[in-house]
Amino acid sequence: MPRPPSDAREKIVDATIRLLRRGGLSASGINDVLALSGAPKGSLYYYFPGGKQQMVSAALALYQERIADQFSAAMGGAGRLQNRVARMCLGIEQKMQATQFRESCAVGAVLLDLDEADEALREQCESILEGWAQVLKSHLPEVAAAKRPLAARQLISMIEGAQIMARVTRDPRPLRDIAPSFARVFG
Amino acid sequence: MPRPPSDAREKIVDATIRLLRRGGLSASGINDVLALSGAPKGSLYYYFPGGKQQMVSAALALYQERIADQFSAAMGGAGRLQNRVARMCLGIEQKMQATQFRESCAVGAVLLDLDEADEALREQCESILEGWAQVLKSHLPEVAAAKRPLAARQLISMIEGAQIMARVTRDPRPLRDIAPSFARVFG
Repeated sequence: MPRPPSDAREKIVDATIRLLRRGGLSASGINDVLALSGAPKGSLYYYFPGGKQQMVSAALALYQERIADQFSAAMGGAGRLQNRVARMCLGIEQKMQATQFRESCAVGAVLLDLDEADEALREQCESILEGWAQVLKSHLPEVAAAKRPLAARQLISMIEGAQIMARVTRDPRPLRDIAPSFARVFG
Repeated sequence: MPRPPSDAREKIVDATIRLLRRGGLSASGINDVLALSGAPKGSLYYYFPGGKQQMVSAALALYQERIADQFSAAMGGAGRLQNRVARMCLGIEQKMQATQFRESCAVGAVLLDLDEADEALREQCESILEGWAQVLKSHLPEVAAAKRPLAARQLISMIEGAQIMARVTRDPRPLRDIAPSFARVFG
């Protein structure tokens, strides 16, 4: 087949990220992605000959990078610890508000659809969380070096949990609660 | 049809809870539940003429009660705040270990499969979280009354997040991290 439109890959990956955030693997079938992206089926198999698994993996890789950039911008900016964490959580809240609390973290959503057959995908999710933890660790100068792994892990854990709570209750408070508590423990 | 075996309802509900914990709504189809429970198809429709939605709703109602009892036993027992929270988290960890970290909170898992059509189910999830928060609030005498709603909400949020982290990494540390931090903030 001729090379498909050059923006088709980007549209497919973007649509996959949105669907993963909304409902995990079970919401991001090939046909769902085609419908949301408007990309022709041929272009999906052109860019992702491995089908859904390859497409999801590419989407998660881009998602990892985007969130890492967002965390880095918020946590690496000026201000004391509590304000930087609050800024990071506000970024998450704004995304959730923009979708009426219908989208949350893609890793949390994918994870819950994994069965034993998807070990490669679980490993990718693990590596994404580890990558984010590295980013956070590098922006926690207030925290003693020995405590940074714990602080980074707990911050990610709090963010994952708050997204679930916020999504169920359609209330951003669980995200807003994070910064004061985190700063109290680690500041 | 004749009345099916009296333990069939219990088996169906138990199997539904396990499948919800494992993979949310997308993992708990009628056929999945029949296969795991060993119950005859007729008995499922006898007890749940409304089909999957009614079965899931009954499973979530029982799940809410079981977890509330577990929270209540751990948090209402003797000991200072940090030890009681640690006891509660250990209960969650033991369940996760018993399934090789393949099951986590049913509410978190169901939520991520919801679309706009499932508003009744979202409301049930919200009411479950609210019910657990009430249980926790009643067992936080160390926390000033005005801060108890925040403390209860944040404890549930931390538990939801830690289950996701623990499940991705197959590592119980995120659950073990909760008690010291929670006690530092609210103790």
